[in-house]
Amino acid sequence: MSETAGEAGGRRSRRGAGGRKARRALRASAKGVKHPYITRKLPLTELMSEEGLVLVEANAETLLEEIGIEFRDDPEALEIWRQAGAGVDGERVRFPRGLCRELIKTAPSSFIQHARNPERSVNIGGDSIVFAPVYGPPFVLDLDRGRRYATIEDFRNFVKLAYVAPALHHSGGTVCEPVDVPVNKRHLDMVYSHIRYSDLPFMGSVTAAERAEDSVEMAKLLFGADFVAENTVLINLINANSPMTFDGTMLGALKVYARNNQATIVTPFILSGAMAPVTPVGVMTQTLAEALAGMAFTQLVRPGAPVVFGSFASSISMQSGAPTFGTPEPALVLFGMAALARRLGVPFRSGGSLCGSKVPDAQAAFESMQTLYPTILAGVNFVLHAAGWLEGGLASSYEKFVMDADQLAMMQVLAQGYDTSENGQAMDAIREVGPGSHFLGCAHTQANFETAFYRSPVADNNSFEQWEAEGSQDTYRRANGLYKKMLADYEAPPLDPAIDESLQDFMARKKASMPDAFA
Amino acid sequence: MSETAGEAGGRRSRRGAGGRKARRALRASAKGVKHPYITRKLPLTELMSEEGLVLVEANAETLLEEIGIEFRDDPEALEIWRQAGAGVDGERVRFPRGLCRELIKTAPSSFIQHARNPERSVNIGGDSIVFAPVYGPPFVLDLDRGRRYATIEDFRNFVKLAYVAPALHHSGGTVCEPVDVPVNKRHLDMVYSHIRYSDLPFMGSVTAAERAEDSVEMAKLLFGADFVAENTVLINLINANSPMTFDGTMLGALKVYARNNQATIVTPFILSGAMAPVTPVGVMTQTLAEALAGMAFTQLVRPGAPVVFGSFASSISMQSGAPTFGTPEPALVLFGMAALARRLGVPFRSGGSLCGSKVPDAQAAFESMQTLYPTILAGVNFVLHAAGWLEGGLASSYEKFVMDADQLAMMQVLAQGYDTSENGQAMDAIREVGPGSHFLGCAHTQANFETAFYRSPVADNNSFEQWEAEGSQDTYRRANGLYKKMLADYEAPPLDPAIDESLQDFMARKKASMPDAFA
Repeated sequence: MSETAGEAGGRRSRRGAGGRKARRALRASAKGVKHPYITRKLPLTELMSEEGLVLVEANAETLLEEIGIEFRDDPEALEIWRQAGAGVDGERVRFPRGLCRELIKTAPSSFIQHARNPERSVNIGGDSIVFAPVYGPPFVLDLDRGRRYATIEDFRNFVKLAYVAPALHHSGGTVCEPVDVPVNKRHLDMVYSHIRYSDLPFMGSVTAAERAEDSVEMAKLLFGADFVAENTVLINLINANSPMTFDGTMLGALKVYARNNQATIVTPFILSGAMAPVTPVGVMTQTLAEALAGMAFTQLVRPGAPVVFGSFASSISMQSGAPTFGTPEPALVLFGMAALARRLGVPFRSGGSLCGSKVPDAQAAFESMQTLYPTILAGVNFVLHAAGWLEGGLASSYEKFVMDADQLAMMQVLAQGYDTSENGQAMDAIREVGPGSHFLGCAHTQANFETAFYRSPVADNNSFEQWEAEGSQDTYRRANGLYKKMLADYEAPPLDPAIDESLQDFMARKKASMPDAFA
Repeated sequence: MSETAGEAGGRRSRRGAGGRKARRALRASAKGVKHPYITRKLPLTELMSEEGLVLVEANAETLLEEIGIEFRDDPEALEIWRQAGAGVDGERVRFPRGLCRELIKTAPSSFIQHARNPERSVNIGGDSIVFAPVYGPPFVLDLDRGRRYATIEDFRNFVKLAYVAPALHHSGGTVCEPVDVPVNKRHLDMVYSHIRYSDLPFMGSVTAAERAEDSVEMAKLLFGADFVAENTVLINLINANSPMTFDGTMLGALKVYARNNQATIVTPFILSGAMAPVTPVGVMTQTLAEALAGMAFTQLVRPGAPVVFGSFASSISMQSGAPTFGTPEPALVLFGMAALARRLGVPFRSGGSLCGSKVPDAQAAFESMQTLYPTILAGVNFVLHAAGWLEGGLASSYEKFVMDADQLAMMQVLAQGYDTSENGQAMDAIREVGPGSHFLGCAHTQANFETAFYRSPVADNNSFEQWEAEGSQDTYRRANGLYKKMLADYEAPPLDPAIDESLQDFMARKKASMPDAFA
C-alpha cells in the first residue's frame, strides 16, 4: 500500500528459499573469486554536446599555439620539439595548430598490460575498465591505530588487499609511501612487493629517471628481457606540473618508459582555482592542451609507445584553499574529458573513489560515489585511486579500501548491462506466480537465487533489532573486521624461486651502491 | 609531480583570494536561498538498447493479455474495465494488446503542480526534476535520541527542513508517520502541517477514499474550489500491491484524485525476489505491465487526469529475505524504466536516496548515491525519498536528511551542464596566468570565486590537524549540528489567517465526527 514498514519490513522474517546448504556453497564459492577486467556492455554517457567538445578542442589548440607549454630542465626535450617543428623559446614550446594531435596518431588506441599471471593481464582502452588502488599517500589510517606515517608493511598489506579483492584488476603503484625505507631505495621495495605479493599488473617508479630504469630492469628479470622489449608490462604515472609545465623529473621518467615501449599515463593534475581556471570548460581546455603536448612527446620519443590520456581534476575551497572532492564541477570535467580522449583515439584514465573526508564516514562515501559513478558511465579505461583513497589523497585507509572494493564489485555487475535471454526475461516466473502471490519459492527464483543479486560483504541488511544485538556496528567498524579477515586469509601467489633470487640480488646490489637518503 | 601530499596538501594553507569581506557576503547570501525545480540541461543516459526496450514492452503486453491484473474489492473498477473492452473474470482483468497504452494517450506529458506560493509551483514531466522528501517511515532517528516512533512534532520538523533546504522543491507527503495522532485523523494533521509550515507543493492522503476526499477539501479551502477544479494542487502516491494487484484502498483513493483532476503516481512497489522475478528485465516487464494497467485506469476514470509512471524497485537478500538497497540490479531497472516511461509519454517517478543502513554512515551514503546518481542521469521527473530515507524506509533520519539535501544541491548544479560562454571558457584566465604560475589571484578567479564551486554545508575540507582540533567530528555529528541550526533558523511562511481558520475548523469538525482509532 505505501512505502513503509509494512512492506519493507514485513519481508524481513522470510528466508531465501535455498536453505543452509546452498548458502554454504555460496560462501565457499565466494572465496578466491577474482573478476577479470571489465568489458563494458553499457552505452557511454555523453554529457557534453559535440559543439562543446569542438569548442574545447579549438581553445586547446589556441593555448598550445599562443601560450605554449614549458618543458623544464630537459634540453633534450626542447631539441626533440625543435626537430618536430615546434617553436622553442627558452623552455617554452609553442605548437603549430594540429601538430600534437597529428603526432598522437601513432599511439595505440588500446594495449595489453601483461601480468606475470597471464590470466591477470589487462586490456587498457576501448570498452575496458581496469580498477587500480590509491596512489601516493604518505599516511595510512585504520580504526585501531588511527592515522600514522605509512611503512613498507602497510605497503605490502595494500598490495595483498588488492590481490584478494575480487574487483581490483591491478596492483597499482605507490599504494602508500613507505616512509620507513630510504627515499632513494624505496622504489625497489615497492616494485618488488608488487611482484612478490601479487600476480596482478603493476606500475613502475617515476620519481627519477634512474628509478624508472630500475623498474624496467626488475620487469626484465621477471618477464625476460625479450618479452619486455616486445610487450607492455609496466604502466607509469607521468603528471604534468599544471599549469602548462612538465618538469625534468617527469620528463626523465617518461623518456625511459617510452624508449622501453612501456606505457605512460600523461596526467595534468589540476585543482581548479589553483592550477587552472575556476570553470569546468576552462579546466577541460587546459587539461586537453597539457595532455596533448605530453602525449605527443611520448610519440616523438618512440612512435607507437603506449600512452594513456590522464585527467585528474578537482577543485579547491575558495574559502579555505583546501582541495575538495565529490563536488559536481569535477564530474562535469570528467564526463567531458572522457569524450575528448575518445575523439583522440587513446585510452583514458581518470576518476576513482576520491574524497576529502578524514575518516571513512558518510562524507567519504558520498564524495567517492560522486566521482566513481561518473567514472563508470563516462567510459574511463584505467581507474587509479579506485580503492583506499582518503583525506584528499593524504591517507590510504584500510577500511575505506574494502568499502570501495565493494562498490567496485557492484560496478562490475552494472557494467554488464541487461540480460535479455529467456532466463533474464523471466516470463515463466511471472506465469508461474501470477497476481497476489510471491516469487520466493518459484522455480525461476530457485534456479537463479545464488547469483541473482550482488551481495555486499560490507553492508548490513539485518533488522534493526538484530543489528543492535550484534553491537550496533557502523560500516567503519564492520570494514575493520573485513580487512583483517582478508589479510588473514591471504595466500601469496607462487613465484619462481630463481626469479625471486635474481630480484633480491638486483635490489641488494642497487641498495649497496648508494648511501641512504631520506629527503 | 605525483598525486601525494605534496600537491594535495601543499595548497591547504593558501587562502582564497577574496578575503574576509567576500566570505561574509557569501555566508549572508547563502541564507534563504531556495532553488527552483531543476530544468535538466544534460542529455539523458540511456543504458538499455531500443531492442531491449521493445522486448520488455512486448512481454508486458503478453502479461496484460494472458495473465492480467487483479483489481480487488472494487466492483466499480471491474465495471469500468468491462465497459472499456477488457476481459473480466472474477477480479482478474485481462487487457487486449495495446489497450492500456492507447488509453494512456489522454494523459498529459507534463503538468504543473501548484504551490500556495506561486514561485514554488513545480513542473512534473519533460526535462524537469523535482526533489521531495522521504515518504512513509514509522520511526525517526537522530544522534541525540536514537531511534523512536515518529510524532507529529517530528513530522512538522521534517516539513520545516524541506522548506529550508535549498534543493528540496516539494514538501512531500508522509515525511514520517505521526503515530501519536489517531490513525483515522492523522491525515488531517499531516496535510495541515504541509500547508501551515511550508509553502511548497505537497501530497494528499491515500490511506482511504474518505481521507483522499478530506485532502481535496483542504486543498479547496487553501486554493479555492474553482482553482482546484481547473488545476493540479495535489500529487498522490498510489502503489500497486505487486505482483499484479491493485487493492480497494488504493483504487478508492485513485478514483477520488482522478475525478478531481488531481495527480496520481501509479507505482508498482517491488522488492525483486519477493514481489517480482529476480532478474532486472523481469522486474521491468512486471513493473511496466502493472503501471500500464493503473495509469490506464486513471484515464478511464477521467480522461486527461494527470498521472505519473512510478517505479520503486529494489531487491531482497536471498540469504536473509531482508530488503537491500544501493545494489547494481535496481539501478539497471531504474535506467530502463525511465526510458520506457519516456516512450509512453508520461512523467516518471523513481529513485531517491535509498539505503538499508541503520545509521547515516558510509553504507547509507554509498547506497544512497548508487540510487541517486542513476536517478539524475536517467531522467527521473519526480524524486520521492530524495532526502531523509534510512533503514529501508523504516526511519526518517534528521541527519541523513541534511546530508541528502547537500547531495541534491550538488545534483542541481550538475544538471545545469556546461557553461560554454566566454566566461566559462576562461581563455583570458589561461592567458593571464600562463605556465608555472597559479590562478588564485587572477582577474577571472576574482570575478567568479563566489559562485565557482558548489560549497557543501556538511563536508569538512579542513586540514587533518584542524579537524582534529575541532573534535574529530564525523559527518553524522556535523549533520546533527546543521539540522538543529536549520530548525532554529526556520521562519514560517505567512498564511492568510482566514484560510488558517477555515482549515482548523474543517479539521475540528472532522475529528469530532468520529472516535479515535489506533489500528
